[in-house]
Amino acid sequence: MPDLTPAAWTCPLPLRDYPHVVMGHGGGGRLSADLVEHLFLPAFRNPALARLGDAAVLPPVPGRLAFTTDGFVVRPLFFPGGCVGDLAVHGTVNDLAVSGATPLYLSAGFILEEGLPLADLGRIVDRMAAAARAAGVAVVCGDTKVVDRGHGDGCYITTAGVGVVPDGVTLGVQQARPGDAVVLSGPVGNHGIAVLCVREGLEFETRVESDTAALTGLAAAVLAACPATRAMRDPTRGGLAATLNEIAAGSGVGIEIDEPAVPVDDEVRAACDLLGLDPLLVANEGKLVAVVPADAADHLLAAVRRHPLGTRAAVIGRVTDQHPRLVVARTAVGGRRVVSTPVGEQLPRIC
Amino acid sequence: MPDLTPAAWTCPLPLRDYPHVVMGHGGGGRLSADLVEHLFLPAFRNPALARLGDAAVLPPVPGRLAFTTDGFVVRPLFFPGGCVGDLAVHGTVNDLAVSGATPLYLSAGFILEEGLPLADLGRIVDRMAAAARAAGVAVVCGDTKVVDRGHGDGCYITTAGVGVVPDGVTLGVQQARPGDAVVLSGPVGNHGIAVLCVREGLEFETRVESDTAALTGLAAAVLAACPATRAMRDPTRGGLAATLNEIAAGSGVGIEIDEPAVPVDDEVRAACDLLGLDPLLVANEGKLVAVVPADAADHLLAAVRRHPLGTRAAVIGRVTDQHPRLVVARTAVGGRRVVSTPVGEQLPRIC
Repeated sequence: MPDLTPAAWTCPLPLRDYPHVVMGHGGGGRLSADLVEHLFLPAFRNPALARLGDAAVLPPVPGRLAFTTDGFVVRPLFFPGGCVGDLAVHGTVNDLAVSGATPLYLSAGFILEEGLPLADLGRIVDRMAAAARAAGVAVVCGDTKVVDRGHGDGCYITTAGVGVVPDGVTLGVQQARPGDAVVLSGPVGNHGIAVLCVREGLEFETRVESDTAALTGLAAAVLAACPATRAMRDPTRGGLAATLNEIAAGSGVGIEIDEPAVPVDDEVRAACDLLGLDPLLVANEGKLVAVVPADAADHLLAAVRRHPLGTRAAVIGRVTDQHPRLVVARTAVGGRRVVSTPVGEQLPRIC
Repeated sequence: MPDLTPAAWTCPLPLRDYPHVVMGHGGGGRLSADLVEHLFLPAFRNPALARLGDAAVLPPVPGRLAFTTDGFVVRPLFFPGGCVGDLAVHGTVNDLAVSGATPLYLSAGFILEEGLPLADLGRIVDRMAAAARAAGVAVVCGDTKVVDRGHGDGCYITTAGVGVVPDGVTLGVQQARPGDAVVLSGPVGNHGIAVLCVREGLEFETRVESDTAALTGLAAAVLAACPATRAMRDPTRGGLAATLNEIAAGSGVGIEIDEPAVPVDDEVRAACDLLGLDPLLVANEGKLVAVVPADAADHLLAAVRRHPLGTRAAVIGRVTDQHPRLVVARTAVGGRRVVSTPVGEQLPRIC
């Protein structure tokens, strides 16, 4: 985490008299205004935000609107490969991207716990701003509330995102058809295991890093290579298992995956073995699943592999009219097992 | 609070085996899906939400976009006149409305604390849905996270809102001009005092109720009656004082208010006197301040008073080129006092 040293935080520190968040930072008065002026405005710098209206007023969006929201309560706030700030940008950007939309704008709602070091907030906001710039979106509106000590956990962030859906794009988990191929953009489980390792103090020879990343470019590459793509999803909470089950249930089809074809990093597999976790159920924050007509699969796979986030992409399975609404994995030893949606929470507070 | 009895909660109770929120309700698995299927979908019922995509895909918006967000951490969750659910809808709808936008869509991000009674969540969601219907907006996307006991306070909600700004509408706190009139839509301080009384167990002869309400119709009436309106704001956290100071600072003008002209309910004034609070600093959740050219003031006032939420509207002051960036009140006894933006938090966790 070289970027998590205090020196990496470049935003000016507001109100050096207050090294920690105090209740007044959420009070709508001068302390709130200082936070906006000295932290949020310089970090997210854009004209819509700078007008400080009750709402950002933005140019007309030329096409159908995509709108989504996600809350982020990851513990700890900082982990190998990222922090709650990266997640809060990537998570919402990715929900737009896999819907076929071009992400445009984000809102950012902070719920801070009294006592959070302002330097930590600065680092989080700094990383959010960098992630937004990299993803090509502007954070145009925001809000900060402060809760008393013992009623939060440092920093919760809820972002919402607006994007534009190009004409002709109609993706949906209802559209998978028997015979379709299922393409996965890379190895699974890294985000969940990275957070778990730092939380539980586990160490492996090679440190597992979160895969948190914006899927904007990769999703666009998928749609360019295969305009007939049926559905895209990013397998976050609930992992690949939850995503495939959503597609199977949404389309009333079965999905058969070839388990050895699902890429999993050695350290992630080792951690999962040690902890008794199934990598198919562990959260990702920068992976994409696409369901495409079988005859487009090879072309699509080649296109995804050309993208930096898709070099280890694989065709991991296919859609079938057998066992509708069930996801079945063919295991390495030739057996078959049902891959269910997890009931609850394998790893709590992972995003 | 007749509507806060269990019988008033009409949503089907998901998973009666779980009378309280458990970590798994935020896990992205089957428990999360149950919450969506049995609580959120029936309550917020609309086609965009029902598609359950990663993002809601919505028809093109014909004009400039307004986008805003607000978090709600009020304590307690239920108070005379409303609950966190009403606030979460009204707060965001009002930020759109006072920007001159027609509110269209809301997102809803829930951060629930493990152990929250599901019946309480049901009542909150029910009231959100009713408030959204009344305000003419659709809740089209959402997210639920659960944090472990002791890291939340029942239910935090962050909403974001999208609206359309009609052609020709350009409001802004930068646009007040010396000579303009300041119109307030009704009595101030009710929301903050209502929450404070229930929190602290204070009782007065007449119970103070929150003024939480959607300002959509009232804001539209203002713009219809006075298209030359310079600025509108809803004085929430920080009260009327913070709002007037924002306008004074934004436009580089002074504002002079006639303090006896500011409507304050007797019970609110009594509570403020008792507690040593200034009603001008207490939060409102259903009031509107408009700055308009002086020659339009009488016409506007008549129009506002015809609206159910504006029957007690008043012209409370005027914009001046004296004392730029300062708000000055003429008191009942003929004195003058500076009305400053509060530094921090007079009443924490009021919204």
